[in-house]
Amino acid sequence: MADQRDTADRFLPRFDAAGLVTAIVTDASTGVLLMVAHMNADAIERTQATGKAHFWSRSRSALWRKGETSGNELTLVEMRVDCDQDAVLLRVRPAGPACHTGRRSCFYRRVEADGSLVFLDDDAHS
Amino acid sequence: MADQRDTADRFLPRFDAAGLVTAIVTDASTGVLLMVAHMNADAIERTQATGKAHFWSRSRSALWRKGETSGNELTLVEMRVDCDQDAVLLRVRPAGPACHTGRRSCFYRRVEADGSLVFLDDDAHS
Repeated sequence: MADQRDTADRFLPRFDAAGLVTAIVTDASTGVLLMVAHMNADAIERTQATGKAHFWSRSRSALWRKGETSGNELTLVEMRVDCDQDAVLLRVRPAGPACHTGRRSCFYRRVEADGSLVFLDDDAHS
Repeated sequence: MADQRDTADRFLPRFDAAGLVTAIVTDASTGVLLMVAHMNADAIERTQATGKAHFWSRSRSALWRKGETSGNELTLVEMRVDCDQDAVLLRVRPAGPACHTGRRSCFYRRVEADGSLVFLDDDAHS
């Protein structure tokens, strides 16, 4: 509670035990939520240095540049940080679908009360 | 890679070692990113059952209903899940500011290249 991260004017990411912060990626022009990933200090630095989104893959334990194989890179427009500095928002210009399934957004299914999932049209993302 | 979570029509959250998924909260009417939190199975169940957003506080190790003290509850409009089912999107109708600082969104600061943070007007959120 005494932490000053919410009033700080310096970027002091609060990395978790694995050295990561949550990264939320939205389309800068539409505001649509595209994907969620994780960043370590290196991913943040490379994203800032190159203007292309880099993340840390927890499953592969490796730094990756989004689009390095698919070509669907994300060009950084603006980075924001949340109040307690354990999450960042990347507002980007996507070169193509952000999801590995070929969809614009990774959030393409609605959760129903009974636990079923309903697939949404790409246009439904907002 | 052989995991079928991205094509499944059933909600099968992929909880991390701590039993949590990432929860992204947006304003259902504007699409603005409001906050990021975590949910365990109980938080998901109570959110679905009550229509009010519940989360798991990692710092307090406790379930909490957003707004239980501030009154700024979040009424669920729709829940979505991402491709690998380790993150959910809550599209909500907020009763007031989502951030504990009194701001509409927790993402009220822009990260500059030199590591400084610039405070944004509430209207700048998108």
